[in-house]
Amino acid sequence: MALHGEMLVGSSARRGTSGSLRGFDPSTGEKLDPAYGGATAQDVQEACRLAAEAFDTYRETSIEERARFLEAIAQNILDIGDELVVRCMAESGLPRGRLEGERGRTVGQLRLFAEVLRDGGFLDLRIDPAQPERKPLARVDLRLRNIAVGPVAVFGASNFPLAFSVAGGDTASALAAGCPVVAKAHSAHPGTSEFVGRAVQKAVADCGLPEGVFSLIFDSGYEAGQALVADPHIAAVGFTGSRRGGMALIKIAQSRPEPIPVYAEMSSINPVVLFPGALAARGADIGKAFIASLTLGSGQFCTNPGLVLAVEGKGLDAFVDAAASALQEAPAGTMLTPGIHAAYSEGVEALSKHARVKTLARGLTGGPYQGQAGLFSTTASDFLKDPALQAEVFGATGLVVRCADETELRQVLEKLEGQLTAALHLEASDHESVRRLLPLLERRVGRILVNGFGTGVEVGHAMVHGGPFPATSDGRTTSVGSLAIRRFLRPVSYQDLPQDLLPASLRDDNPLGLSRRLDGKLVQP
Amino acid sequence: MALHGEMLVGSSARRGTSGSLRGFDPSTGEKLDPAYGGATAQDVQEACRLAAEAFDTYRETSIEERARFLEAIAQNILDIGDELVVRCMAESGLPRGRLEGERGRTVGQLRLFAEVLRDGGFLDLRIDPAQPERKPLARVDLRLRNIAVGPVAVFGASNFPLAFSVAGGDTASALAAGCPVVAKAHSAHPGTSEFVGRAVQKAVADCGLPEGVFSLIFDSGYEAGQALVADPHIAAVGFTGSRRGGMALIKIAQSRPEPIPVYAEMSSINPVVLFPGALAARGADIGKAFIASLTLGSGQFCTNPGLVLAVEGKGLDAFVDAAASALQEAPAGTMLTPGIHAAYSEGVEALSKHARVKTLARGLTGGPYQGQAGLFSTTASDFLKDPALQAEVFGATGLVVRCADETELRQVLEKLEGQLTAALHLEASDHESVRRLLPLLERRVGRILVNGFGTGVEVGHAMVHGGPFPATSDGRTTSVGSLAIRRFLRPVSYQDLPQDLLPASLRDDNPLGLSRRLDGKLVQP
Repeated sequence: MALHGEMLVGSSARRGTSGSLRGFDPSTGEKLDPAYGGATAQDVQEACRLAAEAFDTYRETSIEERARFLEAIAQNILDIGDELVVRCMAESGLPRGRLEGERGRTVGQLRLFAEVLRDGGFLDLRIDPAQPERKPLARVDLRLRNIAVGPVAVFGASNFPLAFSVAGGDTASALAAGCPVVAKAHSAHPGTSEFVGRAVQKAVADCGLPEGVFSLIFDSGYEAGQALVADPHIAAVGFTGSRRGGMALIKIAQSRPEPIPVYAEMSSINPVVLFPGALAARGADIGKAFIASLTLGSGQFCTNPGLVLAVEGKGLDAFVDAAASALQEAPAGTMLTPGIHAAYSEGVEALSKHARVKTLARGLTGGPYQGQAGLFSTTASDFLKDPALQAEVFGATGLVVRCADETELRQVLEKLEGQLTAALHLEASDHESVRRLLPLLERRVGRILVNGFGTGVEVGHAMVHGGPFPATSDGRTTSVGSLAIRRFLRPVSYQDLPQDLLPASLRDDNPLGLSRRLDGKLVQP
Repeated sequence: MALHGEMLVGSSARRGTSGSLRGFDPSTGEKLDPAYGGATAQDVQEACRLAAEAFDTYRETSIEERARFLEAIAQNILDIGDELVVRCMAESGLPRGRLEGERGRTVGQLRLFAEVLRDGGFLDLRIDPAQPERKPLARVDLRLRNIAVGPVAVFGASNFPLAFSVAGGDTASALAAGCPVVAKAHSAHPGTSEFVGRAVQKAVADCGLPEGVFSLIFDSGYEAGQALVADPHIAAVGFTGSRRGGMALIKIAQSRPEPIPVYAEMSSINPVVLFPGALAARGADIGKAFIASLTLGSGQFCTNPGLVLAVEGKGLDAFVDAAASALQEAPAGTMLTPGIHAAYSEGVEALSKHARVKTLARGLTGGPYQGQAGLFSTTASDFLKDPALQAEVFGATGLVVRCADETELRQVLEKLEGQLTAALHLEASDHESVRRLLPLLERRVGRILVNGFGTGVEVGHAMVHGGPFPATSDGRTTSVGSLAIRRFLRPVSYQDLPQDLLPASLRDDNPLGLSRRLDGKLVQP
């Protein structure tokens, strides 16, 4: 497959004419061919109009048709072959192993949503049968199902160029829900985006679906993306990126004549809490493991453990010594884009010059777009004095906050903004302290994990990759895992509809064989 | 039980000092004793602080404890006895039968949520067990449950002084979810609010719950309500009322340092679509039934059928003639407040003077706060020219839109804003036309009903009382029925937690005996 530098509007492909953009290899500093053109306002309108035209047909495809479509996308992505991985390596600076794994995750995610569809639980089917004899008023027949919300705009993330981009988690869950998708490619990986976009476009055609089910646009600045969120045909937005970017889209979405939800995954420093028992038993080992997690993928994960909290003591000293030693050996890693590298360098610079922050160690230096890891420390009382110390530094940098006692540790957690994850390192002797802290952590984060780090995000049914603001714009949702489909569904109730006008899923004879709630009680077929 | 004119802050009761307000009997024009005082900023802060302090304890009460608490509230409301109905009649101008029914609905709603709790489905429990042998990476153990979002602010509605006020649907679903509630009484029924608030306050004490689980404040203007939505302890807002009021609260909620969701049910004109077969078979009968529904409770329902759409023909003429005759006989009905009456009169006046609108009939005139029913008509092409004709006129007034053909009828529906309900009148011969229209209606409304009117809102499991903006601020939700609980829940994921640190609902031995999804498959105990 060759790259043509083209956006995909429905079944067509064409070069955009609003400015231009190119891939960039952060490991060599070279611009990559081909050039891409940004979408014009007309391109955006056309993609959204096609999506709206496709909506009623697409959302009423059968569960099996939609499941097969998702599986076809997965297969088409695999069929691109090694070219996809090679291009993605060039555009992201990420290593082969990581990207092969990420491709597997992307494909697995699409297949997971095919399973979710076949299960049917996402429809939340409910039937409250009529009670004509009820006094004083007869009860009507009421039936409920979820339907898709409408066309969804998806903004690809830079740090997961496959798993959270053109055919990533947002797209997979929106398509599964029955929503056409207009994807806005991240400008850091246009070639990867075109490859994957064509795989989706081909699946649309192969499955005989309306062309508007999927479009892919490029943006040479911010205008096309902004127009996409403002387009009256768009019903919801999925976004993964910076807090500034997310908040800008939310503002546009809320200012529309008909406001729409934006599911933005934005900013998190993912506290790691080290309990005394664990520190005493294996402080140094945790220190080494922490640095391995902190520096993984140059720290460019939403769930990167950027903050360590622990009570003063010998165990914490051992942790810090081991962590500092390990960090000093950490090679500089190529960062995704020059912009991300520059922001990282600024963030680290600010920490290293902060009057109340001590530099514990710096990693090895590297090339022009490589990030030098950093480990810093401060005290809880100093941390509490400066909210700026909570700002996310996207990259391999961590801040250890030394607390005088459990009360102070608790104060720091109370002051933290919403987070994606909290990681707890503990032994059996710590359980009592942990139990006291869990309610507070539940209020602050979407995922609590024990004796590990949050950087691995399993794509399953019980995953929450979300959390209170500003971790995400909607802490009631997750963007990873099967529950992500719920973001793109809304319930509709049908009262006294004749059987032949009801959706098949709600008919008396249950022709699709799905689980339903009958008068509130779950009935399996 | 006597009224003391007091707000309830946790377990205390006291007269507010920020301005004053009184109940008003719209049927006699008399002000009612006692006087109430508005809450100060300090009162609001204290109520919210108590709610936040109660939150962790209250949300972790057992399912059975919380269910019994809801049942205790229900019983305490009944125990107030006839005084409650008498006071509510005086404050609302609504008749005894309606309010006795509404009390039954309020109590039934609380008991329904007790059932929902005992079912356990609201927790959405999921377990993805560890797979230590998985290659290339071992799979962690992941478990998910829903927890309560935090303290909820509830704004009572004027038109359902019992069922959608202090202990109405929003409060019942928030308390069921595990959220403490700070209720802002509607100033149209302060006495009713105090009665019901004391019933809830007593249930909190009787059940041994922390006092902050419930507070009730009064507001002599808008300041206390605004401060409530802005308070950092408040995590979500439930509101039923005008579009202007809802939008004002949404703006405050979005401007907070940590934005929060507002579930506002605001504005709907509830289209009624009359199909040719039905009109031919029983146009006149439908006309009479329509007027009965339009004028019910002086038209003061969110689901009042304010718009009729049909294709020109003899059937439509018969409908219009019968409806106009019936409306002329409709007595003027006492409206809830002088403000609502004034807004209604203005709205009707604007319609009757509109150059493109014809007055078909007016109802009987009445007293100073009684609304005179109205029936108007226009053509589809005129309707399409003026978006102002879509504005809700809250009261017993309807507009018939005469369409040249099905295409024009479709155009009108395409132009409509989001609605709570659409009512279809049809015969078997209409099914083909209906089938063509259903996808469009599903996009526009939360509930589609056949051969009836939307004014009865059944409180069950399959009810959706919601709909796309501006019917509600969040079309993915319902404010009536058991699904309303989902508005106040968010998922939390637990990774590799030792059994004794897990919530009971997620332990291996399933001590609560609840349904859970195991690797995505639903397993019933």
